[in-house]
Amino acid sequence: MKLPALLLALAHLHGVLGLWPLPRSLQTGSSALKLASNFDIHVNIAHAPSDLGSAIARTKSFLKNDKLGRLVVGRGTLDSNVVQRAGSLRTLELSLAPGSPVRSITDEARLPIGTRSEEYALHIPADGFTATLTANSTLGLLRGLTTFEQLWYEASGQVYTMETPVSISDSPAYPFRGFMLDTSRNFFPVSDIQRTLDAMSWVKMSQFHWHVTDSQSFPLEVPGFTELASKGAYASSMVYSPQDVQDIVAYAGARGIDVMIEIDTPGHTAIISAAHPEHIACAEASPWTTFANEPPPGQLRLASPATTNFTADLLASVARMFPSSLMSTGGDELNTECYVQDPETQADLKASGRTLEQALDVFTRTTHAAIRAEGKTPAVWEEMVLEHNVTLGNDTVVMVWISSANAAAVAAKNFRIVHGPSDFFYLDCGAGEWVGDDVANSWCDPFKTWQKSYTFDPQANISASQAHLVLGGEQLLWTEQSGPENLDSIVWPRAASSTEVFWSGPGGNSTTALPRLHDLAFRMRQRGVKAIPLQPLWCALREGQCNINS
Amino acid sequence: MKLPALLLALAHLHGVLGLWPLPRSLQTGSSALKLASNFDIHVNIAHAPSDLGSAIARTKSFLKNDKLGRLVVGRGTLDSNVVQRAGSLRTLELSLAPGSPVRSITDEARLPIGTRSEEYALHIPADGFTATLTANSTLGLLRGLTTFEQLWYEASGQVYTMETPVSISDSPAYPFRGFMLDTSRNFFPVSDIQRTLDAMSWVKMSQFHWHVTDSQSFPLEVPGFTELASKGAYASSMVYSPQDVQDIVAYAGARGIDVMIEIDTPGHTAIISAAHPEHIACAEASPWTTFANEPPPGQLRLASPATTNFTADLLASVARMFPSSLMSTGGDELNTECYVQDPETQADLKASGRTLEQALDVFTRTTHAAIRAEGKTPAVWEEMVLEHNVTLGNDTVVMVWISSANAAAVAAKNFRIVHGPSDFFYLDCGAGEWVGDDVANSWCDPFKTWQKSYTFDPQANISASQAHLVLGGEQLLWTEQSGPENLDSIVWPRAASSTEVFWSGPGGNSTTALPRLHDLAFRMRQRGVKAIPLQPLWCALREGQCNINS
Repeated sequence: MKLPALLLALAHLHGVLGLWPLPRSLQTGSSALKLASNFDIHVNIAHAPSDLGSAIARTKSFLKNDKLGRLVVGRGTLDSNVVQRAGSLRTLELSLAPGSPVRSITDEARLPIGTRSEEYALHIPADGFTATLTANSTLGLLRGLTTFEQLWYEASGQVYTMETPVSISDSPAYPFRGFMLDTSRNFFPVSDIQRTLDAMSWVKMSQFHWHVTDSQSFPLEVPGFTELASKGAYASSMVYSPQDVQDIVAYAGARGIDVMIEIDTPGHTAIISAAHPEHIACAEASPWTTFANEPPPGQLRLASPATTNFTADLLASVARMFPSSLMSTGGDELNTECYVQDPETQADLKASGRTLEQALDVFTRTTHAAIRAEGKTPAVWEEMVLEHNVTLGNDTVVMVWISSANAAAVAAKNFRIVHGPSDFFYLDCGAGEWVGDDVANSWCDPFKTWQKSYTFDPQANISASQAHLVLGGEQLLWTEQSGPENLDSIVWPRAASSTEVFWSGPGGNSTTALPRLHDLAFRMRQRGVKAIPLQPLWCALREGQCNINS
Repeated sequence: MKLPALLLALAHLHGVLGLWPLPRSLQTGSSALKLASNFDIHVNIAHAPSDLGSAIARTKSFLKNDKLGRLVVGRGTLDSNVVQRAGSLRTLELSLAPGSPVRSITDEARLPIGTRSEEYALHIPADGFTATLTANSTLGLLRGLTTFEQLWYEASGQVYTMETPVSISDSPAYPFRGFMLDTSRNFFPVSDIQRTLDAMSWVKMSQFHWHVTDSQSFPLEVPGFTELASKGAYASSMVYSPQDVQDIVAYAGARGIDVMIEIDTPGHTAIISAAHPEHIACAEASPWTTFANEPPPGQLRLASPATTNFTADLLASVARMFPSSLMSTGGDELNTECYVQDPETQADLKASGRTLEQALDVFTRTTHAAIRAEGKTPAVWEEMVLEHNVTLGNDTVVMVWISSANAAAVAAKNFRIVHGPSDFFYLDCGAGEWVGDDVANSWCDPFKTWQKSYTFDPQANISASQAHLVLGGEQLLWTEQSGPENLDSIVWPRAASSTEVFWSGPGGNSTTALPRLHDLAFRMRQRGVKAIPLQPLWCALREGQCNINS
């Protein structure tokens, strides 16, 4: 049987192994192995948490239902002869390293960023003897299960791999591997967010950054502040209730994802004026272009003690809805002209004898103290560090968005960094301008291809002594022109690009990565996430043949 | 009751009437009118065709299920008082002008381009007396029903309009208002095509240009040539059977849409080599960049009499599958180097004593004769006229794609024109490059916004004496990076832009058109087509407030 051996060799040369992100250490062989019809996953852990059981059930379901034919001509049907004679894997055994605390996936995923254990080791022998997955935490086991799912293909009714033995020792390069969704400019039902969390978990993302409110709508029902959503949501059907939030954070936690909520302040808050006009400056100001980067204008009266207390109480109440230790208070795009022209703010400043910057400092210290009292570490957008001089705890996380070049300045101030630069990671760019009478292209043209995101270097221009400050990064979807209609198609598989940078480390080659990304996109589709094709199917089935330098 | 009157006035000033495309003649009043609970549509036509009955049933279903709240703050709930007291419309009466032939919508839609009757007149009185829709054809009645559907909103359980009396006299500026879909680079199930036809009909498109095959795959089962699909489709599940074709053309016809099939020749045919390697030059040639604009290379051996006859027979068989009087034989991007390096072609040229251009002329005359024998008028891409010197019947339709500037040169040669210029109408541009190792942006950057398409002038640089040559135009989706996953979101509502240009005429103002386009996108979503948001909902509910010059 010469042919199968040749095919095997080709398959291996072509590197069709569909892992994403790539493990940090990976050895594969060239032996076929199939899953036994009675394949099962055993857990050698006393009192294993229930969310680990659920994760195992999902893995078994994916192994059964992915039904992914290898992305080669013939979709792997030529493997069948070899697979028929191959060994059968009956068991994957999961265990924790001795002495590891038996915590739920959910609890581990919500530990402070940087202290979660995600490493794991996976070994699949070529002979079909028991495969083993070990980790120091159930979260690590979840990451390993996610890897295990990506090893298998189906042809002629057999679930198999052509690359055993497989030895993987894996851990993330950076702990913060995120995706940000804006649910204020356009609304997304809970089911859309849960589907997104599913896809995030399949690529080992760790952090959902939920930009829940903005100037356009206030879709979050906050205990004690229910008027904000009842008057500020787009519709009563477009509100996240406390139960919805519980469902989302539970869904995320079980999938190894922590939810960092953001209530953007003091800018990006115009819609609060619907319920509390007394707290918002320049809500009716015109033209909006003078008072905000986007309509509607309107910002919290940061110099007002009443507004400051209101904001602190609101943030504290939101903080109590979310189990994460991180919470973003925003802080981007503060418009000073809004305050210059607001008589109340001017009166407040005069009464206190403070400058606007001094008032902003008081406002920020007060609101941060409020969420710290609830156990949160604040995250802020870069302007709070680079354009303003507010007092921030030195554990504050700073999110860089204006330009990747700005990370160095944030690092120089010794703050921890999350990379979300518009020039690499903004998923909305390049699809035209949403302003009603401006026929120009988008402000952050061009479209950020996955290849562009893939070239991101988290340590660019950051000194070795500041390297530890980089927590990771995220791709972001601002939703001026997105809704449930294009959520999947604008995000996937593109947003998988950064998670490989932040898990596997930078420097990957997008040309050789492409076949794995195809593989991921196909699995996503089969699991219900509408990841788009990156190439004609002809190319996806013929690695390298659609390269210019082929 | 001062408030409702004020609201009414505002509503009218703001022009919320959600018609798309805009009728050529439109008068509206400011009286409210609701649909009676027993509203019905009567047909005053003896032996009315069944597809008119189906169209009426769809209209009644949309009136019931669109449930579109007006795109204003409050979604029209404040209209309720006025609507309660308004008259009720019980009947819309449809009739044909005396002497009009009673043809089905389907038959009228398949008449030769330029001879179909699409004009109609619609009158809705303010008092609730019978509304009337008259036309010279059932196709005209369909267009009028489509307009009628767009007049109504729902609030508090009432279906109503605030703008009666309505008087519309309407007819298209151009007969060819099209959309092109490439089903070769990636495959689309029949249901996706039918959903696209639905959306096309809602904006009065008349022509589906089906680029069914290309070099990547051959998904069409052609009687007598079934080996092309069985060996050249991506999978047996990715084939359009003759029954599928019948279903698609019937579905289109009933919706007033003619289907122009394209079998692109002699280039863009590499996949034919899977079944007939003898007919394809340079199928294995390398590097592909020398022999084709996209992989895989491979073109019909146009100098071979056998290949020419094969192609003529194939095209004739395809022609018999489609009732349209138009059929495209393609003709774009012919690569001459492929033939220079093909020994068989060189031998054929030598044997016949022809140059390549002369052989192309013979090939084209032969294949066009074959489809003319089946009653088809050929359509070709612009290169057949501008880059080659082939003999074409003077009724040939030429599709301009490389640049909008090229239309003038085609007109100068006295050919009929369909505008499909990449610089205005290519829906795939601006989303990155699909070539595997080229991280550049797309060749036709930037993204073509709906506003850009909307500025298209069909008569630009065309002399008055050639003006009659312009049949219309189409927006096009080449599917290197599209599949069912993003079909709706990449096409809608953008592709509605050109249909307003070609129905209502050019010169529209995109700023004032935007609210109508929002309205259309909302209706599309409620009818199951995932049209994307063009703005935050905050803006969509507040006409003009997200303009820079507001």
